Amino acid sequence: MSVDRSVIRELETIVGAEHVRTDPGDVEPYSRDATPAFRAVPDAVAWPGTAEEVAAILKLATSRRVPVIPRGAGSNLCAATVAERGGIVVVLTRMDKILEVSADELLARVETGVSTAALADTAAAQGLLYAPDPGSRTVSTVGGNVAMCAGGLRGLKYGVTRNYVLGTTVVLPTGEIMKTGGRLWKDVAGYDLTRLLTGSEGTLGVLTELTVALLPMPATSNTGVAYFPTLADAGRAVDAIIGHGIVPATLEFLDAKCIGAVEQYARLGLRDDAGALLLFGDDGAQDVVDRNLERIGEQCTATGAMEVTLAENIARAQALLEARRCSLPALSRLGTMTILEDATVPRPRLAEMVDRIDAIAHAHDVPVATFGHAGDGNLHPTIVVDQHDDAAIKRAHEAFGEVFKAAISMDGTITGEHGVGAAKLPYLIDRLGADQMALLRRIKAAFDPAGILNPGKLGS
Amino acid sequence: MSVDRSVIRELETIVGAEHVRTDPGDVEPYSRDATPAFRAVPDAVAWPGTAEEVAAILKLATSRRVPVIPRGAGSNLCAATVAERGGIVVVLTRMDKILEVSADELLARVETGVSTAALADTAAAQGLLYAPDPGSRTVSTVGGNVAMCAGGLRGLKYGVTRNYVLGTTVVLPTGEIMKTGGRLWKDVAGYDLTRLLTGSEGTLGVLTELTVALLPMPATSNTGVAYFPTLADAGRAVDAIIGHGIVPATLEFLDAKCIGAVEQYARLGLRDDAGALLLFGDDGAQDVVDRNLERIGEQCTATGAMEVTLAENIARAQALLEARRCSLPALSRLGTMTILEDATVPRPRLAEMVDRIDAIAHAHDVPVATFGHAGDGNLHPTIVVDQHDDAAIKRAHEAFGEVFKAAISMDGTITGEHGVGAAKLPYLIDRLGADQMALLRRIKAAFDPAGILNPGKLGS
Repeated sequence: MSVDRSVIRELETIVGAEHVRTDPGDVEPYSRDATPAFRAVPDAVAWPGTAEEVAAILKLATSRRVPVIPRGAGSNLCAATVAERGGIVVVLTRMDKILEVSADELLARVETGVSTAALADTAAAQGLLYAPDPGSRTVSTVGGNVAMCAGGLRGLKYGVTRNYVLGTTVVLPTGEIMKTGGRLWKDVAGYDLTRLLTGSEGTLGVLTELTVALLPMPATSNTGVAYFPTLADAGRAVDAIIGHGIVPATLEFLDAKCIGAVEQYARLGLRDDAGALLLFGDDGAQDVVDRNLERIGEQCTATGAMEVTLAENIARAQALLEARRCSLPALSRLGTMTILEDATVPRPRLAEMVDRIDAIAHAHDVPVATFGHAGDGNLHPTIVVDQHDDAAIKRAHEAFGEVFKAAISMDGTITGEHGVGAAKLPYLIDRLGADQMALLRRIKAAFDPAGILNPGKLGS
Repeated sequence: MSVDRSVIRELETIVGAEHVRTDPGDVEPYSRDATPAFRAVPDAVAWPGTAEEVAAILKLATSRRVPVIPRGAGSNLCAATVAERGGIVVVLTRMDKILEVSADELLARVETGVSTAALADTAAAQGLLYAPDPGSRTVSTVGGNVAMCAGGLRGLKYGVTRNYVLGTTVVLPTGEIMKTGGRLWKDVAGYDLTRLLTGSEGTLGVLTELTVALLPMPATSNTGVAYFPTLADAGRAVDAIIGHGIVPATLEFLDAKCIGAVEQYARLGLRDDAGALLLFGDDGAQDVVDRNLERIGEQCTATGAMEVTLAENIARAQALLEARRCSLPALSRLGTMTILEDATVPRPRLAEMVDRIDAIAHAHDVPVATFGHAGDGNLHPTIVVDQHDDAAIKRAHEAFGEVFKAAISMDGTITGEHGVGAAKLPYLIDRLGADQMALLRRIKAAFDPAGILNPGKLGS
């Protein structure tokens, strides 16, 4: 153990001995998150119950120069919560209260460890929508969503988590407890720390409370599916839909390999002869949804869809959305290690990018399947290999390195919604350049002079 | 002149002598912006033509420790561009090209000195909406809007400028030219510098190019007006509208004194016997707009409106919106100095806040009228005095000091959309606290180690 025993004793004093673990068997689950191939065993895991306890932990960590890694559910996909340099993993799941849901003010106030689904369900019970909808929502925490600026299936119309964070309570690495923003949609008093913290991946402060914006629940929603001979055809359909002024809630795609894997996994009755599938959905007033889905269907037909079907009922609509949601587990069954990526390009270049991905994967002799958010140009190319096949894992990572380079060369980025973490930090300089990397380090130092918070991640 | 003559000669070498002014008569117009009672004469005014020229100016300024104040149209209302410590005002209006409008990607790329209206008009000609709609849009620059995170009349449904900035080219005070963000809606590679720069009031870097998001132009829009006996009634109507799940584009209010001033100024045929006026508008498909306006009208009637009228044609709708847009010029005629503020409270507390404002103004013996964005809880209390009546000006500023305290005590803020600038910097600590003020200074230093960029404003 690299962390001094006296630090552990102080930690136990702060949160109570029953909320600290140091035994190898107990800390082992916290050596990984949902990212394959990244593992580092922390010295201790602590579960604080209040912002004050978090502040005491951080003061201790700063004075003793011990790394602290904040963690929600550990469902991130970029090794953002792996304790690369040891230290204390601070798990925020005890702080899971929904403190307030206000229909008058269209907001909720929550502790950061609450699950995204719990917030969404509680809001829905009051006729309110929490719009951010990441794939991990049943397990992920709202704090984790904010730390990563999570996206999701409704991003095209509703935007990402960033757009819904009104205020935070954050503990700085030096122990100050601070409120940023508040209960207001419009507030320009000071630098936008709320947005700076959103997506900062636990490197600038530990979020303990969040105020998030809610929306009136749309009256209804519906979903349709269109099959295309090729992904290029599906890409043209997306361009035509947007070009006709329709910005629906959901516009997702699966390539042929994904369709096959999903159908084998979930038996949803998907066609097996298509080169691509486009899933489209919208919400709002019944007549608006009906009209938008009909117009989307027309554009799909006009751009060469083999078939366009609207869900005839809610169950069928949910089954169709399930086709997209289960893409990852379906693909995961094809091997023992699933590496999912998140490159993003301008929307009109989606099909071109999938072609590039296929060519890169072929050149590196790894199987790839791609699905993602067509409306956002946000792709999730997925490589599934044998976890014991070190050579294949190496080829997969090399292939993704080229995928990132290709995305950047197409005015794209290395991550649209999953984050940088430890997994993509080596590629970040290609996206941002040396000057901006240096600026990130100076901003990091403004928050965390001792560099104790999630070291080896953003700002390192 | 406090700036050395050799600095001016270097400045002339960088941008050309024809783009530098130092004569008192020439620099006088740049000693003020649209904020009354703030004036400071700069040593020089320069009009660079490229990001490279801006970089050379900033390198010079950092090496010689000369303040640089970036400026667009100078239409801000918080003395954000007043050269409080002298130095060089850098005016960006020569850099006014619209570089690209892409209907496929729903974005525009512009130099920062372009006017907001020019961007909006060019986008509209391609069937696209640039949603941010500040009152100053015919004169303000897009760069200024981003630097201040400007709001506007459509903020309730569409959000503020922040939500539409995809990418920037920014010159750091030390001369690095850097791109943040890009052409993507989803991009989490690195800290969110794009949002950190938005609303940073020219204290962190000089914006030279912006990529902004556009939307499909709504098919139609319409406006209605409701008169209420009291502002409290209007506040209840706003709560009922939102409570029934209607979030229209526009929901603005005028108090009785504003209605009177506007009617005297513009002769729009407004009622003179109402305690408050609510202006509501929406855009989208014709049937959706019709239905939403009808439902809003019903809620107004149910909460005690004296009269509800929908505009019967576009000309009348524009006349009604004009009632809101001309509130400031109408009130300005009542004296020779108009002090407009921007306090914001949670939406349900709007009427309570207007009562507080009236009581504070009464206690300080200054006349106040209030209008603003009812849907956002964003109030613009306006005090009009004689510019030679120093005692009245002092009382007005004392009254606003109490208004800010009241807003903060109601979970509100000192500025919703106008910014802090020099005018509200003394009040910022009441909103943010000492710890956050210190953090702002550390962030400022991470960008601007010599402290040359817009000193005496945010981060000072």
